[in-house]
Amino acid sequence: MATTSSRSNSNPGSDDDDSTPAMRRLRRLSLHLLQPEGPASSHLAPAACAARRRLEADAAALAAYMRGRHRAMQARVYEFYVARPELQTPVELPTAAHRELCFRQMAALVRDAGVRPLSLMAADPAEYFAVMEAVGGLDISLAIKVGVQYSLWGGSIINLGTKKHKEKFFDKIDNLEYPGCFAMTELHHGSNVQALQTTATFDPVNDEFIIDTPNDGAIKWWIGNAALHGKFATVFARLILPLQGKGGEPADMGIHAFIVPIRDLETHVVLPGIEINDCGHKIGLNGVDNGALRFRSVRIPRDNLLNRFGDVARDGKYTSSLPTINKRFAATLGELVGGRVGLAYSSVGVLKVAVTIAVRYALLRQQFGPPKQPEISVLDYQSHQHKLMPMLASAYAFHFARGYLVDKYSEMKKTNDEDLSADVHVLSSGLKSYITSYTAKSISICRESCGGHGYAAVNRFGGLRNDHDIFQTFEGDNTVLLQQVAGDLLKQYQQKFKGGTISVTWSYLRESMSTYLSQPNPVTARWEGEDHLRDPNFQLDAFRYRTSRLLHSVAARLQKHMKTLGGFGAWNRCLNHLLTLAESHIESIILARFIEAVKSCPDEKTREVLKLVCDLYALDRIWNDIGTYRNVDYVAPNKAKAIHKLVDYLSYQVRLVARELVDAFDLPDQIIRAPIGMQSEAYAQYTQFVGF
Amino acid sequence: MATTSSRSNSNPGSDDDDSTPAMRRLRRLSLHLLQPEGPASSHLAPAACAARRRLEADAAALAAYMRGRHRAMQARVYEFYVARPELQTPVELPTAAHRELCFRQMAALVRDAGVRPLSLMAADPAEYFAVMEAVGGLDISLAIKVGVQYSLWGGSIINLGTKKHKEKFFDKIDNLEYPGCFAMTELHHGSNVQALQTTATFDPVNDEFIIDTPNDGAIKWWIGNAALHGKFATVFARLILPLQGKGGEPADMGIHAFIVPIRDLETHVVLPGIEINDCGHKIGLNGVDNGALRFRSVRIPRDNLLNRFGDVARDGKYTSSLPTINKRFAATLGELVGGRVGLAYSSVGVLKVAVTIAVRYALLRQQFGPPKQPEISVLDYQSHQHKLMPMLASAYAFHFARGYLVDKYSEMKKTNDEDLSADVHVLSSGLKSYITSYTAKSISICRESCGGHGYAAVNRFGGLRNDHDIFQTFEGDNTVLLQQVAGDLLKQYQQKFKGGTISVTWSYLRESMSTYLSQPNPVTARWEGEDHLRDPNFQLDAFRYRTSRLLHSVAARLQKHMKTLGGFGAWNRCLNHLLTLAESHIESIILARFIEAVKSCPDEKTREVLKLVCDLYALDRIWNDIGTYRNVDYVAPNKAKAIHKLVDYLSYQVRLVARELVDAFDLPDQIIRAPIGMQSEAYAQYTQFVGF
Repeated sequence: MATTSSRSNSNPGSDDDDSTPAMRRLRRLSLHLLQPEGPASSHLAPAACAARRRLEADAAALAAYMRGRHRAMQARVYEFYVARPELQTPVELPTAAHRELCFRQMAALVRDAGVRPLSLMAADPAEYFAVMEAVGGLDISLAIKVGVQYSLWGGSIINLGTKKHKEKFFDKIDNLEYPGCFAMTELHHGSNVQALQTTATFDPVNDEFIIDTPNDGAIKWWIGNAALHGKFATVFARLILPLQGKGGEPADMGIHAFIVPIRDLETHVVLPGIEINDCGHKIGLNGVDNGALRFRSVRIPRDNLLNRFGDVARDGKYTSSLPTINKRFAATLGELVGGRVGLAYSSVGVLKVAVTIAVRYALLRQQFGPPKQPEISVLDYQSHQHKLMPMLASAYAFHFARGYLVDKYSEMKKTNDEDLSADVHVLSSGLKSYITSYTAKSISICRESCGGHGYAAVNRFGGLRNDHDIFQTFEGDNTVLLQQVAGDLLKQYQQKFKGGTISVTWSYLRESMSTYLSQPNPVTARWEGEDHLRDPNFQLDAFRYRTSRLLHSVAARLQKHMKTLGGFGAWNRCLNHLLTLAESHIESIILARFIEAVKSCPDEKTREVLKLVCDLYALDRIWNDIGTYRNVDYVAPNKAKAIHKLVDYLSYQVRLVARELVDAFDLPDQIIRAPIGMQSEAYAQYTQFVGF
Repeated sequence: MATTSSRSNSNPGSDDDDSTPAMRRLRRLSLHLLQPEGPASSHLAPAACAARRRLEADAAALAAYMRGRHRAMQARVYEFYVARPELQTPVELPTAAHRELCFRQMAALVRDAGVRPLSLMAADPAEYFAVMEAVGGLDISLAIKVGVQYSLWGGSIINLGTKKHKEKFFDKIDNLEYPGCFAMTELHHGSNVQALQTTATFDPVNDEFIIDTPNDGAIKWWIGNAALHGKFATVFARLILPLQGKGGEPADMGIHAFIVPIRDLETHVVLPGIEINDCGHKIGLNGVDNGALRFRSVRIPRDNLLNRFGDVARDGKYTSSLPTINKRFAATLGELVGGRVGLAYSSVGVLKVAVTIAVRYALLRQQFGPPKQPEISVLDYQSHQHKLMPMLASAYAFHFARGYLVDKYSEMKKTNDEDLSADVHVLSSGLKSYITSYTAKSISICRESCGGHGYAAVNRFGGLRNDHDIFQTFEGDNTVLLQQVAGDLLKQYQQKFKGGTISVTWSYLRESMSTYLSQPNPVTARWEGEDHLRDPNFQLDAFRYRTSRLLHSVAARLQKHMKTLGGFGAWNRCLNHLLTLAESHIESIILARFIEAVKSCPDEKTREVLKLVCDLYALDRIWNDIGTYRNVDYVAPNKAKAIHKLVDYLSYQVRLVARELVDAFDLPDQIIRAPIGMQSEAYAQYTQFVGF
């Protein structure tokens, strides 16, 4: 891990001359921090840059461009909850009460606000994700509770079931008559889904499956909705067919999904053979009731197999349109990609909230200042700009990337195109992983940048961080997902040499791999003018160069190590390299979308502001990885220095429009809620909250 | 911020050759993650290194060396609480109940266990810090509650008061008869203590001070013990002397500390003129009752001025042994350095707990594996070693650094040596800042590395992170403290040129500044043998080179910018650079102490293990900042690559003794508590906790 941020590479201005006499002034200077006195007529550092033209930002115009077609729906959700104070989540709430409130919040959305999430998901996924983000604005627990009910439980019926299942379950899931669970993870297995141990054995005599938990490690764990509210669970289990294996042994057909009733529809009592325990208090998301389930010979009708990709006939014979266990497994898991899209989407929403609070407070908060002059806003400190401005730029970058992801996902759902599916699978894995990791780190930085007042629960960072934390793990552990991205890149790389097709998202690899593999150009490596550094072509080339180089070198390393270590060993030997490759690729995609969004902006002033933000995003990322670029002389030392300087300057420029940039996120005060993040009267709202 | 970790710089093994035909195998490989099948006979990557000799670690011998002279006292504290189950903090607890429990925990320590913290602090500070760490093992809230009562409230009497105050308060603070507060921070001012606005105006007629809160921004905020338990507060306020200023105006004598009774000793009712509100629920530390105080003409006797550094006579005349307001202010704040030492110390304790849980679980948890072979421990994955092994090494490094800090602090308290005081001030600022930032980030990485089970509250990461989070802010914001380190370095730098003395801790600057300022040696820049890279001289030289270079270049930059921007503006213009310098200096100190500790270890086997850990610490830090070293050609590209490779290899080597390394922290299971962090039967303890 990096203990120090990108500052670590900091070593600008090495115009080293000793000049002993001036050191006396330095000493005085070194004491200023504690003792802000002295005669120096000073002004703020950034003033040196003020000669250049200052951009003006129009928050309303920015918001209009950022705002998608789902703003009306989100506003409707916000307004619904704002009008119902009894549905607001208090700052402190015991787990039991939080769970009940969370269910009431969800029920009100469906029954009172008339939102039908499952219908939305089926008809207009993009709108469904927008609703998810909006309810997450009320309480992230609610978004996850809704996600369990609709994305997971509902999604398993839609995506893995067939007509008979939809007829029986769709409406009752949608109107919440059937709250349900998605019982995949076990105590011993989360990431390695193929190693799940729960069994579903077909009983041809009674035409039933028998669900069993063979050992403690196979207890279904972390199952949302299970501790309290669920009436059904989609249980992932190994399908066992007696007599169908070699020599009449039982055949293990791999992982399939089954609908298992877990509580009585009338009495809500847990059904016989099922043991449910409460997973208890969590770091966050305590509005969601996670439970652990053990099955002891629980019988379900044959019809309860979700049989889209594989079916068992009355006589116990297995049929499937897909030839192998692995293909069926991939198809099954592939259908669950929507959850990942939703998490990437919502994570951007969480980042926006955190950044908005931190930036507004940094503008409000004043501490220290030049001698005999008023104190200055903490956002005027270079170190504070360094913490928050690239983060603000990233929130913009991710905003456009998630729009792209949702579009692709919606298109996939419409067309069922196979190549597009593969593309969306990798894109969602990569963006989910990259964005949630970034947001998780950023919330901590925001808290710290708000000092003591950032530690008050009412100011939100604790709740946001605790609730969001697990976004890095569920729906696919980030480290595992990045490996899927890397694996796909290697596949694409291979296809380049085989002359096959390459999916649209990374066609750049095909177009210009050879360029990237040639030696860096010693002339452009020295170009350090601002126009050049702010040229999107330079930026994108740098990102893509890095990806291509990492891809090419890891392929060679894998090949080398496979000889001695085998496939698994070689992969592990190159694992850090592979993860860096995946991140680099995702960054390339994000930058490309951002550049595209800047270009497409019709209003010139707004486009200029977005361009500034995009430049900061791009150059900050390049600077963070400057070691890589320097190592291969892609940039000369002076160019590296120029990039560093420009990142500081752009951070200062973005700071000048930071207020407008966060206002453009268009988040109402009732969603921000933190007193220190209010658009006006923040201190007054804070003292009032405490009781003065 | 760095979104990607040091992997970002990853680009090892560029033995690029295309070899199209082998790509088919790569494709198969790329699918292994989801579909672990295939014929490859594979073994684990690290096996390639297994040819070299494997170290053996003896946890008991390691523990014996690590263990200081305070182990007996810590064991006594642990055993006391373990024997009193009613004093354990449950996993979930409402704020009100937590606060009461926390007070009972503290009272039991003093009254039942017979520990007298204030006496300890006065007689043997090192033992006091060991007690603080031990009670933090029970509940970090308790450590902070004890810290408020003794380090802050008690410390203000001992360090800022005189004989009359100690006679009246010492025993009653020590036996908890007088719970008290330390009322420094105001709503508008935390870091900038000199700008506090609360006033204490002398009334010569009644021989009293009148304490006033002039506006909402001056409300004392975040005051521990104030919401519920405090009977007194040490209030920091501007001392105003009527008629003593120019032309008979009131004179503002700057910040002084006053003892203000806030609740009736008998009835515990809040005294007249004082308004106390509850700061409410916090991200963590909810066992501590923070309050906000407003004073309306509250009168206290003249004797209640803590008058060690300045006094007011009966006739209103001011006397002091120190000539200026700034000197008095520095002396006053200088006495409060103990709190900072305590936080650095305790933060290392928190890091050890988190790392222990994460490492033990990573050894237990198995997921995926080579085809047709058992799954492997997640700590066998290169990515997991990359996350946890440098962190484990850092915990060791910090352990020795904190020992050094406490020794220096104890010596200072004994000798009152002025140079030593300055040294301890900077050392404590730097280590507190560096260690708490590192620990805060590490807890999040530990949570994430434990996946879903890391999210269960019972497994501790949430509580540890939430409680520890504010360590980065209180007792001095980390960003502000690092600037004090940088300021001091500049002072030392100046003295080098003036020929004055340089304090012992950074004498290296004097000894060899000229070496560091010469051009890097083009020969050694290419040395890449393991013996060279693992030579402590190379490592320390690299760390110190970096510090010296950053110091020299920032001094030149400051001097340049002062001409146009003035002192404050120049400082701000170089702020990121200054912060990097401060971190680099602290890292140099930490490494030097670690190398010293390795050398001093009498047992050869143990010394070898510690050397391994120290090498990983050193080279991982160098690799993290490789951009800096490459930029000035301190290391050639091939050497950079060799360092990277060696960091991976050393991480693997440390992984082989990771169990013993965490066992050597000597933390009893009752302090670790997390089921997944138990030394044995972790899964069974976990299922049992949940109710199976």
